[in-house]
Amino acid sequence: MVVLRDDERLDYLLAENMKIVQSPSVFAFSLDAVLLSKFVYVPIQKGKIIDLCTGNGIVPLLLSTRTKAEIIGVELQERLYDMAVRSVGYNGLQHQIGLIQDDLKNMPVVLGHNKYDVVTCNPPYFKTPNQEERNLNEHLAIARHEIHCTLEDVIRVGSKLLKQGGKLALVHRPGRLIEIFELMKAYQIEPKRVRFVYPREGKEANTILVEGIKAGKPDLKILPPLFVYTDKNEYTPEVRTILYGE
Amino acid sequence: MVVLRDDERLDYLLAENMKIVQSPSVFAFSLDAVLLSKFVYVPIQKGKIIDLCTGNGIVPLLLSTRTKAEIIGVELQERLYDMAVRSVGYNGLQHQIGLIQDDLKNMPVVLGHNKYDVVTCNPPYFKTPNQEERNLNEHLAIARHEIHCTLEDVIRVGSKLLKQGGKLALVHRPGRLIEIFELMKAYQIEPKRVRFVYPREGKEANTILVEGIKAGKPDLKILPPLFVYTDKNEYTPEVRTILYGE
Repeated sequence: MVVLRDDERLDYLLAENMKIVQSPSVFAFSLDAVLLSKFVYVPIQKGKIIDLCTGNGIVPLLLSTRTKAEIIGVELQERLYDMAVRSVGYNGLQHQIGLIQDDLKNMPVVLGHNKYDVVTCNPPYFKTPNQEERNLNEHLAIARHEIHCTLEDVIRVGSKLLKQGGKLALVHRPGRLIEIFELMKAYQIEPKRVRFVYPREGKEANTILVEGIKAGKPDLKILPPLFVYTDKNEYTPEVRTILYGE
Repeated sequence: MVVLRDDERLDYLLAENMKIVQSPSVFAFSLDAVLLSKFVYVPIQKGKIIDLCTGNGIVPLLLSTRTKAEIIGVELQERLYDMAVRSVGYNGLQHQIGLIQDDLKNMPVVLGHNKYDVVTCNPPYFKTPNQEERNLNEHLAIARHEIHCTLEDVIRVGSKLLKQGGKLALVHRPGRLIEIFELMKAYQIEPKRVRFVYPREGKEANTILVEGIKAGKPDLKILPPLFVYTDKNEYTPEVRTILYGE
């Protein structure tokens, strides 16, 4: 059982036989978070993983199907943190997934330096615009715009949390790729794997998946492209498998 | 008519109705040079283009079919320069393509700063190894290894030659992408368009096409992926069109 508030729904994560609390007016996960959860390398048997900007906990929930490692989700907004707590409880994953409501910038002090194997983040994509241009819904604005955390915050904090050899994986927009490389390098994370996500064949990429290794050696791999839709506007077989397990 | 030396051949550029002098023991162009020639934005009616590390002149020859701009090819090796001169002559393109045998590092002094609309380069891909690991054929070693010019030389010289708003286009290996971005930024070239070339579906990219604009604004586009071979080991339709004009 789970208590739903306001316009919240209990949505299926079809491929995983799980459910998640979300709400169109507060937070609903995107395909990007799902792709990040499938992209990142995770230790299978044990380890420690942190998901920053965890929202309603979508990434920890999905990662729990791939690893027995301990997973911590960090979310600043009380309302989203509360959704994540209820989703973890509904799926009976309290033993594996911990949730922290706090500013991610406090995490190195709270959790300690150089202790984690993996840090994931699906951060806000947009630089903070003028107050007028910003989404009036404060929950959505915080999730989409760099109001409370910037890309540099995420990478700096991620680097502090990671062990040597630990992995930082992000999903973002192509327009930020160069900045991601620059910031990773500046914080001792060597970019190692990039996958570009294209809405369909013949179109420019609209999403990037990037993974770097703390204190790794330079050796960037560009993985095969991922196409989301076919020319008939249906999900491609790869995306159907990711979403529905078909 | 063209005089051929040693093991030289006069090969067809099928899509262009041209021929080019090459030799397996001295220099033969690769698909990468052809892809670069199709990838780069060129002014159609007029302008000034320089191709650095021009080899047997493959890039200027192919560019001449896309633009009426003046094209200069710069090649250090006398033997390759001589092949380029004969190919340009054979195709009757002396009015459009000029060739210079010199070190590209001298070009900003020889040709002047801030005058060119486009700089292209298919540079040596590999950092110079120990003398023992290097190709014993000096022509091939110079074309493949950073013996006489480094990636930084190419980008620094390219930036000096280009006008504000001029374009620098390179073909290289994915492992050098981050360095290309860093060097372009360091020399006031903003990376704007990247295309990844994959040998076939499901494989990692093995070639990158990168174009930057001198003093441009940050706004990186990731173009649709290019696959070279089908799963039947034939060229894909896009590559067949590029190579054969089919």
